[in-house]
Amino acid sequence: MVKAIEWVSEDGADRLRLIDQTKLPLSEEYLDIVDVDSLVDAISTLAVRGAPALGAAGAYGVAVAIAEGIEQGWDAQELARQVQRVRNARPTAVNLAWGADRVVNKLPELVATPQALHEALTEAHLVAAEDEAANRALSKAGADWLISKLGDRKLRAVTHCNTGALACTAWGTAYGILHELHNRGNLEFVYVDETRPLLQGTRLTSWELGRDGIDHAVEVDGAASSTMLRGLADFAVIGADRITANGDTANKVGSVALALAAERAGIPFVVAAPYSTVDVDTATGDLIEIEQRPDEEVLAVGGVSMAAPGTKAFNPAFDVTPHDLISAIVTEQGVVEPTKEDVALFPGN
Amino acid sequence: MVKAIEWVSEDGADRLRLIDQTKLPLSEEYLDIVDVDSLVDAISTLAVRGAPALGAAGAYGVAVAIAEGIEQGWDAQELARQVQRVRNARPTAVNLAWGADRVVNKLPELVATPQALHEALTEAHLVAAEDEAANRALSKAGADWLISKLGDRKLRAVTHCNTGALACTAWGTAYGILHELHNRGNLEFVYVDETRPLLQGTRLTSWELGRDGIDHAVEVDGAASSTMLRGLADFAVIGADRITANGDTANKVGSVALALAAERAGIPFVVAAPYSTVDVDTATGDLIEIEQRPDEEVLAVGGVSMAAPGTKAFNPAFDVTPHDLISAIVTEQGVVEPTKEDVALFPGN
Repeated sequence: MVKAIEWVSEDGADRLRLIDQTKLPLSEEYLDIVDVDSLVDAISTLAVRGAPALGAAGAYGVAVAIAEGIEQGWDAQELARQVQRVRNARPTAVNLAWGADRVVNKLPELVATPQALHEALTEAHLVAAEDEAANRALSKAGADWLISKLGDRKLRAVTHCNTGALACTAWGTAYGILHELHNRGNLEFVYVDETRPLLQGTRLTSWELGRDGIDHAVEVDGAASSTMLRGLADFAVIGADRITANGDTANKVGSVALALAAERAGIPFVVAAPYSTVDVDTATGDLIEIEQRPDEEVLAVGGVSMAAPGTKAFNPAFDVTPHDLISAIVTEQGVVEPTKEDVALFPGN
Repeated sequence: MVKAIEWVSEDGADRLRLIDQTKLPLSEEYLDIVDVDSLVDAISTLAVRGAPALGAAGAYGVAVAIAEGIEQGWDAQELARQVQRVRNARPTAVNLAWGADRVVNKLPELVATPQALHEALTEAHLVAAEDEAANRALSKAGADWLISKLGDRKLRAVTHCNTGALACTAWGTAYGILHELHNRGNLEFVYVDETRPLLQGTRLTSWELGRDGIDHAVEVDGAASSTMLRGLADFAVIGADRITANGDTANKVGSVALALAAERAGIPFVVAAPYSTVDVDTATGDLIEIEQRPDEEVLAVGGVSMAAPGTKAFNPAFDVTPHDLISAIVTEQGVVEPTKEDVALFPGN
């Protein structure tokens, strides 16, 4: 299985190895990260992306910062500042901060010492291992729920963005449910949204589906609604970047269009994510800050500008699907079915 | 004003001149069409596109076929066969057949003679002139309707695909309403969907808005729903490729997503098209054949494949918006407000 994120020790040197997802599927290249600058850059250019992978990146990022701090002789204040940079490299991705905080909170003291590096790595490895276990558990729960609702038959799905092994440390979330259904003989076909502007569906999800032998076709994002309205799909499933206490879900821009069409078509709309994606401290989705990304992502494709000079873009990275449009939220802790009422679905801290 | 389609006589030779819309906005190139093969090719590659422009292309296409027939010595049977090729170059675009039929029906006899060419051209010029008049009339009607519903203030719009002068012989349909609102001081901002796969929004609509001095930004198609749900737009307006008797509307894939989001956001969703787009002989939208276009349009961008080798695409050119999601259908004959009931809105033949 491809490893999106992995800590490697070679020739006596430690580094965080990331598959460069901006280069897939045409080229399989890896980034060896040994300093905070490179990690922040990899996160902001989406070389590493996907909520669970960002959780691991946050956790391993503390180790990267400590290792660089040992090299550079950082004091505790400078190290804390560098960890904050990792933590805030993408504002909407709650997992990034979650992973970093978990490692920092495990340390007796955030200092640049070999002992702290060892402890940080131990905890980061645990984050990665727990992610795979969570993904496998939520995939089983999601497949069980879908079969209970739709029957033990071959199902046709629509999905958006990439939520597979590339988005996680292993296995996948929404993609994991598709993989689990496939392994059970319950998956007929997947319509993969290309996921503009960065084409994660075309480049990543389609690549993973091909490797896993799952029949699929890529469609433009605007086609997803009519695919559902024409009766070509039995359900839609997406991942999540943040789920608020009432179930409102921030995910890749374009997700809420699937939810609206699924409601109209009368088919389930499922959100799948590890429980770490749930942000119980944020009550509702309208409190989520929506990251704006560069104009060029929209206006230029493959480095070539498609617009007249001077054209502006509006490029929100995420949208928020209101909880009442979500049939089920699946985590490793089980399935929650949001109601039409605006209530806290998840226990607060 | 740019002419998307124009009959020119130069150096004693007649030709149909089309601006090659696949080359805009980076290059302004024209195609001089003197035979049916080239016209069918221009239509199917979308060098000429947009329902009203296709109406004119169908009308002028009969003249192209007659002119080629004079050259080649075609008998009436061969000429009729060639006119059919023009007529059927794109199955969903009812205007294409409408324009061709209108000219053919005007001729005493469909034969390859100079007299028939003269008569065909006279009628085709009339089609073009009527199109501009219709567009200007429907734009006034649409602007009046929107101001009556939303108030005499500056409005923010979402639009999809290209419905401007490039899509028509002149002025525009949905775009014409925006232009009319702008001229009245009632337009604040336009969110332009990029319109995958062929990026008509980025390439064409944005180019026209810039020329007309209208403030705008391009967004990915998946962003349109959240733009409306976040309260950033006051209405959405699209064109139409075919409107059935009950008001169901076929338009560029991605259109129905705007309709669903507008309903949820509680803002008007407006369809604007010349009356020639209304197909009273088709009762409902589910009877419309949806054109499938090549996989490469989705998988390759700017000629560069973004997908792993062997990847398949699902590439419907159009979707159908059910009439109950449409607040108003605006033609040069006035505004019709579809009801939730499935009834014929337009008188049959």
